[in-house]
Amino acid sequence: MAQNIYDSPEFFEAYSRLRRSIEGLDGAAEWPALRALLPKLDGLRVLDLGCGFGWFCRWAREQGAAQVLGIDLSERMLARARATTADASITYRKADMERLDLPDAAFDLVYSSLAIHYLEGLPELMAAVHRVLAPGGHFVFSVEHPIFTAPANPGWIRGCEDRKSWPVDSYFAEGPRRTDWLAKGVIKQHRTLDSYLNLLLGLGFAIRHVEEWRPTETQIAAEPALAEERERPIFLLLSAERQAE
Amino acid sequence: MAQNIYDSPEFFEAYSRLRRSIEGLDGAAEWPALRALLPKLDGLRVLDLGCGFGWFCRWAREQGAAQVLGIDLSERMLARARATTADASITYRKADMERLDLPDAAFDLVYSSLAIHYLEGLPELMAAVHRVLAPGGHFVFSVEHPIFTAPANPGWIRGCEDRKSWPVDSYFAEGPRRTDWLAKGVIKQHRTLDSYLNLLLGLGFAIRHVEEWRPTETQIAAEPALAEERERPIFLLLSAERQAE
Repeated sequence: MAQNIYDSPEFFEAYSRLRRSIEGLDGAAEWPALRALLPKLDGLRVLDLGCGFGWFCRWAREQGAAQVLGIDLSERMLARARATTADASITYRKADMERLDLPDAAFDLVYSSLAIHYLEGLPELMAAVHRVLAPGGHFVFSVEHPIFTAPANPGWIRGCEDRKSWPVDSYFAEGPRRTDWLAKGVIKQHRTLDSYLNLLLGLGFAIRHVEEWRPTETQIAAEPALAEERERPIFLLLSAERQAE
Repeated sequence: MAQNIYDSPEFFEAYSRLRRSIEGLDGAAEWPALRALLPKLDGLRVLDLGCGFGWFCRWAREQGAAQVLGIDLSERMLARARATTADASITYRKADMERLDLPDAAFDLVYSSLAIHYLEGLPELMAAVHRVLAPGGHFVFSVEHPIFTAPANPGWIRGCEDRKSWPVDSYFAEGPRRTDWLAKGVIKQHRTLDSYLNLLLGLGFAIRHVEEWRPTETQIAAEPALAEERERPIFLLLSAERQAE
């Protein structure tokens, strides 16, 4: 089971102050790019892995999704999600993404935003996603990019001419990375990019689009600090489709 | 047209002394991984983009390929390829990969080893490969990995605890990178990983396998200097299939 850092008071308070926690989807710089990978939601049965405060679940219903199930490990996040949702077609459930107890072919879209890189059991998760998706269904997710998660000591360095560089090392050493982000000792799981892709391909997914997220010029003009995200990819966005057997 | 550095005397001499130039395919550490991505060659019509000394063309015929066409920009390399080949089913031709003047659906396999990252016109090349492949045909290639080509100043740096790191910057600035490798001022074209994948997907290729090449334990035991290639990926290997219309 992944570390449940979101229920630690220190982390939860800091996370709650992030722009994406206050403003929701539009507070996340990568949201327009991730949204662009989604199928038309009208009438779809949607599963959100790591639903947090429920922003995506509510948005999916506004777009016409028939039913939405959001699962998360964090009691605190689910409590806030329930308190801010009045829609009988949205269900929130406390569950471990690594042990998805859901019926076969029950969903048309499985979505996950920045949650999967916490999991130890990526192959098991992907197999479960394949199983719960109907043939033709889509799996759209974002994770921290492998270039971002690889380093033993993540953080910008200054090289020649004071250029900012991201120190990539340990790339092929998949496994836990302990970082201090919002709280001390947050554990993420580094995976190579080819692991994400080949696990999907091996299960019978077709890759539809891969995006190494980068800020647009407009985003950088509005928020100049985003410029550094063009030096190395921070997020990996991926869209895959379960093939008919 | 890509820089034709291979015909500069300095570069050619240095290139000719590389293990992969003397020993051929088995002198390239990534060859076993690339070979594993190839379809069964028996009876196939094969095109090798950037055939160099012709090692792959000859090997493909040994594996049963029906016909092999090797193209390259370098007169010097083609001269040596012709001098070391006695097989009427192998043809070598001087041609620019960016302007492939070949008939539609004429090949079952297009192969390219460490050549495509020299090209300015990647979208045009990929469209041409799609066109000359028969439906169901395969495109298998290796390039320098985007993590390897991105930095403005490539080269290992020493960070905390004397750990070797690869300084990634300028990742989303696609375009030329001038490096000193075997000769001064060798120009390569940096592309993001998602560009390679999405260009293929947009043309109607299905991605079959993606490999960020890493040395095996056995290879490192035999050649300890290879250990650093586990810190960051140096080569990207890719297998795609032209879908039936």
